[in-house]
Amino acid sequence: MPNIISRRDLDFLLYEMLDAESLTTKPLYAEHSREVFDQIMDTAEKLGENVFQPIAALTDREEPKFDNGRTILPKETREALDAYVEAGFPAMSFPEALGGLQLPYLISQGVGAIMGAANGNVSGYMMLTGAAARLIIAHGSGEQIARFAAPMIEGRWFGTMCLSEPQAGSSLADIRTKAERREDGTYNITGNKMWISGGEHDLSENIVHMVLARVPGGPAGVKGISLFIVPKFIPDADGNPGDRNDVVLAGLNHKMGNRATVNTVLNFGDAGGATGWLVGGEGMGLAAMFHMMNEARIAVGLGAASTAYTGYLHALDYAKDRRQGRALDDKNPENPMVPIIEHADVKRMLLQQKAYAEGAVALCLTGARMIDDEKTAEDETEKARLNLLLELLTPVMKSWPSEYGPRANDQAIQVHGGYGYTRDYPVERLYRDNRLNPIHEGTKGIQGLDLLGRKVVMQDGAAIQALGAEIRKTLDEASHKTDYPYIGEFGDTLLEYWEKLTTTTMEMAAKARVAGPKAYLANATIYLDAFGHVVVAWIWLRQAIIAARAMEAGTSEQNFYRGKLQACRYFFAYELPSVTPMLDLLATLDTTCMEMHEGWF
Amino acid sequence: MPNIISRRDLDFLLYEMLDAESLTTKPLYAEHSREVFDQIMDTAEKLGENVFQPIAALTDREEPKFDNGRTILPKETREALDAYVEAGFPAMSFPEALGGLQLPYLISQGVGAIMGAANGNVSGYMMLTGAAARLIIAHGSGEQIARFAAPMIEGRWFGTMCLSEPQAGSSLADIRTKAERREDGTYNITGNKMWISGGEHDLSENIVHMVLARVPGGPAGVKGISLFIVPKFIPDADGNPGDRNDVVLAGLNHKMGNRATVNTVLNFGDAGGATGWLVGGEGMGLAAMFHMMNEARIAVGLGAASTAYTGYLHALDYAKDRRQGRALDDKNPENPMVPIIEHADVKRMLLQQKAYAEGAVALCLTGARMIDDEKTAEDETEKARLNLLLELLTPVMKSWPSEYGPRANDQAIQVHGGYGYTRDYPVERLYRDNRLNPIHEGTKGIQGLDLLGRKVVMQDGAAIQALGAEIRKTLDEASHKTDYPYIGEFGDTLLEYWEKLTTTTMEMAAKARVAGPKAYLANATIYLDAFGHVVVAWIWLRQAIIAARAMEAGTSEQNFYRGKLQACRYFFAYELPSVTPMLDLLATLDTTCMEMHEGWF
Repeated sequence: MPNIISRRDLDFLLYEMLDAESLTTKPLYAEHSREVFDQIMDTAEKLGENVFQPIAALTDREEPKFDNGRTILPKETREALDAYVEAGFPAMSFPEALGGLQLPYLISQGVGAIMGAANGNVSGYMMLTGAAARLIIAHGSGEQIARFAAPMIEGRWFGTMCLSEPQAGSSLADIRTKAERREDGTYNITGNKMWISGGEHDLSENIVHMVLARVPGGPAGVKGISLFIVPKFIPDADGNPGDRNDVVLAGLNHKMGNRATVNTVLNFGDAGGATGWLVGGEGMGLAAMFHMMNEARIAVGLGAASTAYTGYLHALDYAKDRRQGRALDDKNPENPMVPIIEHADVKRMLLQQKAYAEGAVALCLTGARMIDDEKTAEDETEKARLNLLLELLTPVMKSWPSEYGPRANDQAIQVHGGYGYTRDYPVERLYRDNRLNPIHEGTKGIQGLDLLGRKVVMQDGAAIQALGAEIRKTLDEASHKTDYPYIGEFGDTLLEYWEKLTTTTMEMAAKARVAGPKAYLANATIYLDAFGHVVVAWIWLRQAIIAARAMEAGTSEQNFYRGKLQACRYFFAYELPSVTPMLDLLATLDTTCMEMHEGWF
Repeated sequence: MPNIISRRDLDFLLYEMLDAESLTTKPLYAEHSREVFDQIMDTAEKLGENVFQPIAALTDREEPKFDNGRTILPKETREALDAYVEAGFPAMSFPEALGGLQLPYLISQGVGAIMGAANGNVSGYMMLTGAAARLIIAHGSGEQIARFAAPMIEGRWFGTMCLSEPQAGSSLADIRTKAERREDGTYNITGNKMWISGGEHDLSENIVHMVLARVPGGPAGVKGISLFIVPKFIPDADGNPGDRNDVVLAGLNHKMGNRATVNTVLNFGDAGGATGWLVGGEGMGLAAMFHMMNEARIAVGLGAASTAYTGYLHALDYAKDRRQGRALDDKNPENPMVPIIEHADVKRMLLQQKAYAEGAVALCLTGARMIDDEKTAEDETEKARLNLLLELLTPVMKSWPSEYGPRANDQAIQVHGGYGYTRDYPVERLYRDNRLNPIHEGTKGIQGLDLLGRKVVMQDGAAIQALGAEIRKTLDEASHKTDYPYIGEFGDTLLEYWEKLTTTTMEMAAKARVAGPKAYLANATIYLDAFGHVVVAWIWLRQAIIAARAMEAGTSEQNFYRGKLQACRYFFAYELPSVTPMLDLLATLDTTCMEMHEGWF
């Protein structure tokens, strides 16, 4: 794949780090094998290389246009999605009983990494569709699954999630869209939804909107929110798209990047009311929607990671090719110029990108493997343990790649110099694309509050203990002597940071008993950054241990494994130490920001 | 000024911090007064508010177009520049003897801050013109000054700097443009220049290109570079634009941002040779050009700072207006939502922007005051001391705002949430605009090498000693007791960091004697970041001391000064500590990046 993502690295993550093959010993995935997984990845690679990546500049340039309630998209967007559907990819991780391929979630996320790197704008439609279908399967009735989820699994219908409204973005408690029960059991939906990705287009036969709304008379706040299926076309008796539902495209949002994913404003019920079907019980909407949102959050993280990854490979390619300047100790201007990759500062910028991009993809795939483990766990204790880990890591998997992915894209521009700032090279587009990720599916600030205010404290810190146990397993492996002396040191260092992180967390909680919840949470975003860096250091150490063993075993791929070791060394020397001042600040429950007064700005 | 830049803050910097009035006691500026300075600033404010800012979205949207060797720009660009010229601004800081207003450089940079915040894309043409004229005045003959600089001072002709070539961006030693001496004393110029801002347009009667080229037979490398004046139109006997010179627009670069400043590829001598006039002696070109480049570097820093500043004010405005969510301890969804500025994390994002933007503008204006002091110094020792300070601080003034300004713009988007990612709000444009600044006029990597490899070591560390003496003056002021207890603490903290910085610098130099120059410079970019943060902490402490005194004196502007104190507190608590791990890494002369092998990526 020319500068999309490294297949060698994906294979490393899937098989050497996350042992995807072992999943085939579980009854759920028993029909599969490494060969099947490889075929799927091969197909994704070809799709990315031949279909998705070649149109990425075009789908950015030819922004979606609003035409009298319709969205006009370049025909290439549809062609790419048709090819994706034809490959059977929408069905990838769904149960066979529902027409799915029943592949591990891990493999579907491996495919997601390729598609996200090739053209995450276009593949975004399928990510939303998969998440919407999964939401119906988890919380809907058998009839709803057959009627709405099945055509999405086939890729004939697409899906959306309709949460935000103009007055309620991050504050879902304040949504106003109304759902009134009709005599036939359906609901009459009226209201306006904002920031709806894929809200209107002709890419699919139908669009299934998953809509949060309030049934009048219910409680205020989040407890009064219910979830509805509101299709663009109401299915007829044969299940085919029938009458147009009362959902109207009111306008498009013109974004800086991520342009191929049309972002819409939708009006429900302008002509009296759209027809909606309640999913689960009244008032259970937000809890159900979180099922979809958690998945979407990991997908956002993986998208940010993949976008960083492709930018890194483009920068690497450029740095090998572009000649500029000479070695610092070569003062002879008659000597030929050297490729810029020979300059230490360029190597630093590339190592930073490698550490961020590969680390972020590894993090998200680790989460995907946990989802498979949770699904296939045989006892409830193990299921609960994995669920705790996933709850804790979800804000990290969403935010860390979304913060450091764009920084990698920033460095990809910098490696290109002036060329990187022009539209003749893809890195400026990737930089614009990736800037979306700290915003949607819960801003970075929201993720910080979720981590520190909810996940860290739930069940008396059980989640953090579960993560600590995972980390200790890695530390144990790191303590075994290897030829590569850094591994033991990395282990000691990680233990130090993990202990400082947990100690700080306890100090914060202790001080909060006096200082109150506001002071406790005032720097939650910084906590998220510090926490994320420690988690990614763990992810890098896991990679490095495998690499050191491969080196000892006399691998023929010295370069590949040596690169993993050096990226780990970079992360521990250049990145992880930034956590110390963050934790020192957090331990004081510093109130500088909280106490800042509006008038003082 | 609606969200351009705070005039109150500019007045604080110009008069309270940098005592611009004291400049009027110097013979050079004796004809001026505070009233004159205020009038100039008032005029700039009106121009910014009424002319430059209102067209900023338009000049971004309507990108320059290439039309058969000509550049097509929106007419509003010309109208704005005409208004700027009409106000007499191009003459601002030039000597009266040359038709200038002979205003302090500090005041011209105060104007620059306003114009940069209002629409730095458009005002960029004038920045380049001023720098080109100053270059001719410093190194050209009396005839060249009259013929070329004078019309630029009037604003009738514009200027450019033509350094880079397709094969030589950062590596100026490798330029190839040829200059052959003709019998009449002029030179025949042939070659291609790349990345030339303002290289072709109809905004002015003529364009004066300052071109680096080689006279055949001269030495290779930088010693063979000479500087030439190459006008678009050759002046006739009356000094009016006459025959078209052989300079042809070959193409435009299509940039991510900063679009109103047309960026060009120019061919010199396609039809045989362009006519050029040698400035100074043969082989003296690069030294002369550095005169212009240093000024341009500070201007880039100020532009980055101003772009951050306007983004910050937009975010502040939005945060006061936008209601979302409730206080963390208010669980009643029936209560009205609060403006998001009440959330601690939003305050943090705004404080960060305030600390970066105000700190960066203060840094660059401090440099401008030093330039005035150098110009008006009465003895050579003082002149030399100021020159050392400026040499040391130039890479910092260029780079710190270029690194942290874009980060402020990033946070301005984040405060806006999804809206900030759309083109309906200006913050995404400012984010794109500011991304240029770490690239042009010497990349960040180049600035790091300049600081650590040249400036820090020159004259046995005399520059760093001169800065240390300046910082100690501030520490002495900080040690006087004030009602605001933090000032003394800030002083102690700054001293600690300054000592750690200088100790680390000496450790690095000592280790380099064994490890060699490559290892010494391998992390020069990180050194630049650490150095910059310490310098900006000093700049913030200076502001805080003044604010504390104003509070003690019972100012009626408590809010303004309280804000300065809180921003200083933020910088010392949240930003400065990040320097510690950087210096710890630097002290080891870490070779992780340097030793990374191309094959390992």
